[in-house]
Amino acid sequence: MLSPERALQIVLDQAYLLEPVELRLLDSRGMTLAEEIVSDMDIPPFDNSAMDGFAIRSPDTLGASLHNPVRLKVLEEDLPAGHTTQKSLMPGYAFQIMTGAPIPAGADAVIPVEDVEMRNEEIWISRPYKTHTNIRDRGEEVWAGEVVLTQGKTIYPADIGLLASLGRSKVAVIRKAKVAVIATGDELIDIEENLQPGLIRDSNSYSLTAQIAEAGAIPQRVGIVADQRELVRQALERSLMECDIVLTSGGVSVGKYDLVKEVVEELGAELKFWKVSQKPGKPLAFWTYGQKLVFGLPGNPVAVMFCFERYVRPLILKMMGRGEIFRPTVKAALAHDLKIKTERTQFMRVIVGRKGEVLWASSTGAQGSGILRSMSLANGIATIPPQKEIWKQGELVEVMLIREIEERPERLPPA
Amino acid sequence: MLSPERALQIVLDQAYLLEPVELRLLDSRGMTLAEEIVSDMDIPPFDNSAMDGFAIRSPDTLGASLHNPVRLKVLEEDLPAGHTTQKSLMPGYAFQIMTGAPIPAGADAVIPVEDVEMRNEEIWISRPYKTHTNIRDRGEEVWAGEVVLTQGKTIYPADIGLLASLGRSKVAVIRKAKVAVIATGDELIDIEENLQPGLIRDSNSYSLTAQIAEAGAIPQRVGIVADQRELVRQALERSLMECDIVLTSGGVSVGKYDLVKEVVEELGAELKFWKVSQKPGKPLAFWTYGQKLVFGLPGNPVAVMFCFERYVRPLILKMMGRGEIFRPTVKAALAHDLKIKTERTQFMRVIVGRKGEVLWASSTGAQGSGILRSMSLANGIATIPPQKEIWKQGELVEVMLIREIEERPERLPPA
Repeated sequence: MLSPERALQIVLDQAYLLEPVELRLLDSRGMTLAEEIVSDMDIPPFDNSAMDGFAIRSPDTLGASLHNPVRLKVLEEDLPAGHTTQKSLMPGYAFQIMTGAPIPAGADAVIPVEDVEMRNEEIWISRPYKTHTNIRDRGEEVWAGEVVLTQGKTIYPADIGLLASLGRSKVAVIRKAKVAVIATGDELIDIEENLQPGLIRDSNSYSLTAQIAEAGAIPQRVGIVADQRELVRQALERSLMECDIVLTSGGVSVGKYDLVKEVVEELGAELKFWKVSQKPGKPLAFWTYGQKLVFGLPGNPVAVMFCFERYVRPLILKMMGRGEIFRPTVKAALAHDLKIKTERTQFMRVIVGRKGEVLWASSTGAQGSGILRSMSLANGIATIPPQKEIWKQGELVEVMLIREIEERPERLPPA
Repeated sequence: MLSPERALQIVLDQAYLLEPVELRLLDSRGMTLAEEIVSDMDIPPFDNSAMDGFAIRSPDTLGASLHNPVRLKVLEEDLPAGHTTQKSLMPGYAFQIMTGAPIPAGADAVIPVEDVEMRNEEIWISRPYKTHTNIRDRGEEVWAGEVVLTQGKTIYPADIGLLASLGRSKVAVIRKAKVAVIATGDELIDIEENLQPGLIRDSNSYSLTAQIAEAGAIPQRVGIVADQRELVRQALERSLMECDIVLTSGGVSVGKYDLVKEVVEELGAELKFWKVSQKPGKPLAFWTYGQKLVFGLPGNPVAVMFCFERYVRPLILKMMGRGEIFRPTVKAALAHDLKIKTERTQFMRVIVGRKGEVLWASSTGAQGSGILRSMSLANGIATIPPQKEIWKQGELVEVMLIREIEERPERLPPA
């Protein structure tokens, strides 16, 4: 059976970069920049004051001391931010100047207001100041022609600020992936319907929709489709038309699974793999349909969420151009012994917590693939390779972190 | 001057929990649950098959072996998921059953389809099966009356799935904070206006708006307000009416800052602190106005973003009921020597990366509080306490992580 590593590789090999769209600046947060941002101007665009104080000529302060202060005459015109003056500063004079205001001609330093004494229309200066003191240079942050942000960068708030200061009200980004979710199964009812004997509520289309949104893509929840060839075909056709990726869940029963499989393949899709040597999520299937990608996810609530985390999320992030497509991983010590009853790679839902300098991974409890609570409690998914049956407390395993590490030992489960 | 620790405490002491609202399930992702979720039903609601196979009576398989297989007659009616049968299973018979289908009366085990041989209307069974094999118990995941999710939990995709399976189409969550952003200053122009001498583009209201959204709150970007008492008052009054938190930025020049300060206080707000012993962000001010909270943020682009990260973000998360209100912190070794020129605590923008087992923190370059790129490049903010001037390469500092740790050493800056 296909290894999880190889299955992931096959999926990622089908990724292609989605096309760019132009968005308003604030709508681009969290997306991938699809253009190189070159500045057409210096930032700041002019030398300006870093402090509230007095713009002076530094040679005027030569030899100044407490016992022999230099006195400069303060000009009547002051220099608030946002205003320029045509006047040049002459020796023996000072302009009162505010933070951000342009440095007037003739001045080459700013003395902070708290460092001078003001008497009548004069300031008394008790030490010399070097040229350039408290002046922010034109182009200090960015110079004209410089590459400010590279294509492919994820846009974070500081980048939004940078782009604003460059006057970019719109920006080209890789568009979000559109991902359809179809839950199949005659046993499924929707959230507000009444339970009848033998029926259960569809939870998969909800958890998948939330996972898609969490990954920054656009979910399209088609909802529940009964096990009827024509309905399955209609739902698939519509989803393939409107979305980049289609997720089906459920219907992995004998004969039924083949219904989804048959319809997908009748439509002309190519099966890339079916069944992966993993627990949960063994019956996972993956097809391509031109550029469209289709996952046949298992029906069990945990298996479906795990397969999304492990295979679909990295694919989505790669198609959206993200540099970092995988969750962070850590090595953690098993908090308890473990007995593995499968020859497949087991992916165990765990809580990873720090006690002192050591990271511990503790099972979230019953690991049945129907037990959604094991996923709700988990902040990580540990990979237990199939090489052996008995694992001892303290042995290191690799954990993919889906949430932050638990830093409060009192909230950790007992080892 | 107030220490950063004390300032943070004063801010957080003013936090109060925002009121709950009822949202549609999928809209509750990432928010704080404002009710205890108790199940009114068992999940699964009935014993059901964990496999595609045959429902049997386990005593029928006693003594079965390869040489002496047990043969059971397969009933004509099969049991797909979503269907129940009124028939009881009699000794010597088997029902074909699909994953998820209710276990019929009389049966107590399911044999997977791949473990039997089917000949004519019989299955041949070559080993004994214990009672309960491949059966998922009613209530295995959740039993009626059980607390499934506790009040205060952040709602993640698995919780959305759990809530769906409980039939909760709506859920009570703590509402999002509304946060106004006012940029003051005569020198500011908006993103699409033409630069004139002495003017710069407002970037702060954009980076703050993005930070507010990233924190999961609702930004209200009021935009640029000129340094005129009446305009500042109108903007503040409207923001205080409509929002929970008001952020002003800029106008920290002499006299001008007092304009914001004076107007805020004329409106009846109470100053909690002004000036914090930190670099950047020294002129930070904080007021309360009844339950509304007002920050006077500095005008410098980095200082404003830093103050948001350090003071506003934890406040927002606390008011939205989040259990974890702080960014994760790590200890990292300085990648280079450092000379500190301030008596205040310095917050240095750094890239934290892993080389082997060691975390290194490397300055993102010029740390002027106008240099937004130092923030754009950073994945962490290191706290450099004021106790000494000279720091050596390898000394440990505490870093607040604002992005993930850089795991690719080749992308780290040289030490």
